[in-house]
Amino acid sequence: MTLVAETAAALVIGNELLSGKTQESNLIELARLLRPIGVRLVRAVIVPDDTELIASEVRALSRDTGVVFTSGGVGPTHDDVTIEAVARAFGVDVVLDPYLERLVRERYAERVTEAHLRMALVPRGAELVGVSDAKWPATLIRNVFVLPGVPEIFRMKLDAVRTHLRGTQPFASRAAFVAIEEAELKPLLDAIVAAHPGVEVGSYPKWLEPSYKTKITFDAQDANAVEAALLDFTARVGKVVRVE
Amino acid sequence: MTLVAETAAALVIGNELLSGKTQESNLIELARLLRPIGVRLVRAVIVPDDTELIASEVRALSRDTGVVFTSGGVGPTHDDVTIEAVARAFGVDVVLDPYLERLVRERYAERVTEAHLRMALVPRGAELVGVSDAKWPATLIRNVFVLPGVPEIFRMKLDAVRTHLRGTQPFASRAAFVAIEEAELKPLLDAIVAAHPGVEVGSYPKWLEPSYKTKITFDAQDANAVEAALLDFTARVGKVVRVE
Repeated sequence: MTLVAETAAALVIGNELLSGKTQESNLIELARLLRPIGVRLVRAVIVPDDTELIASEVRALSRDTGVVFTSGGVGPTHDDVTIEAVARAFGVDVVLDPYLERLVRERYAERVTEAHLRMALVPRGAELVGVSDAKWPATLIRNVFVLPGVPEIFRMKLDAVRTHLRGTQPFASRAAFVAIEEAELKPLLDAIVAAHPGVEVGSYPKWLEPSYKTKITFDAQDANAVEAALLDFTARVGKVVRVE
Repeated sequence: MTLVAETAAALVIGNELLSGKTQESNLIELARLLRPIGVRLVRAVIVPDDTELIASEVRALSRDTGVVFTSGGVGPTHDDVTIEAVARAFGVDVVLDPYLERLVRERYAERVTEAHLRMALVPRGAELVGVSDAKWPATLIRNVFVLPGVPEIFRMKLDAVRTHLRGTQPFASRAAFVAIEEAELKPLLDAIVAAHPGVEVGSYPKWLEPSYKTKITFDAQDANAVEAALLDFTARVGKVVRVE
């Protein structure tokens, strides 16, 4: 099946992210997948390995956004509580998925343990997307993709997401780099924002960078509107270091 | 003044983080500051540059956690809405802070514009902490530190936070690295978790790493309990690659 969504939210799970042990790195990968297919990531929440808390977040995000991605907490050990939490969010129980069970049993053969089989658990009613067309299928229940936190596996599972999720119009994005301080640009930016109401204009000062001082970004689902705003800005500002 | 808190939350603000333009990098710095002083970071939320949304998050996080940190949205341009949003969260208006105004006027002299002065705005009732002892004072209103998103400045402002925030007991943290797959460790980990109920035990598989397969972490505010759990684990597991 293919899910169609306008907005997305991410729920990133893991004590290690909140205690400063690990730099979060899956969100940007997710954002970069969603943007070109036209799904707007509107919110990301990072929470500890707490079943009740995860369940309550999943319920709220699933209700408020088109598609939800969880990252983390799906391994074999005691601190992996996401499957249980997602099941609780939707009032279903946890079951062994026959396809995943076969994969686990094939891999571990006679060494297979209860811990290995925990990796084949899914909330009842979940489906695996990408079994036929992606190397690593992803678990989907209702509008929630349940993905692992290990960055290498998270990325591989995004291949399955990519082929089973569709947005509306892809986002277009351009940027202009100028050697002018952000504050000095304000009157011009206000004029550009007013003249191009459909375009999201972002202004990002860069410290300790010799080649430019401010990056101005133009984003919208209407690519022509983005081009028009970029051209208007570059014409009015005069000198631009480069555009992207 | 010094704020005393047991728990913290972070509100990270910026379209660029949700559109995949920028890798978020302030959270880990904040987490690493809080941990040794004994403040537990319990939640982080990333939202776009939306005044109403930021206001509502600030209100909720300020109510539910001991101390809140916002990151981002405090520059001079149209997309910098955090000061207005925090003011709205607490039902106060936005005013020019005389100390910040003087800094801005000194820096820009006769070139000073309304945009520059936007950087001296604070929610009414806010105070600057670290004016006397930190190079970069930080803005504090009630239990909310309002910090800039530019990583270099965020880090500098954390110096002011460090001297004006106190937790309860510092967290102790140890880790053991073993060349054993996570799933095989599960029975032992369950036993360690049961034997050391005050210690948070984390298990992190490492892919594509030749020297070890799983990192086991032990965290608690009771340093002796952490040492005991680490020793118990290393004694029972037999061979450990290294401990930290």
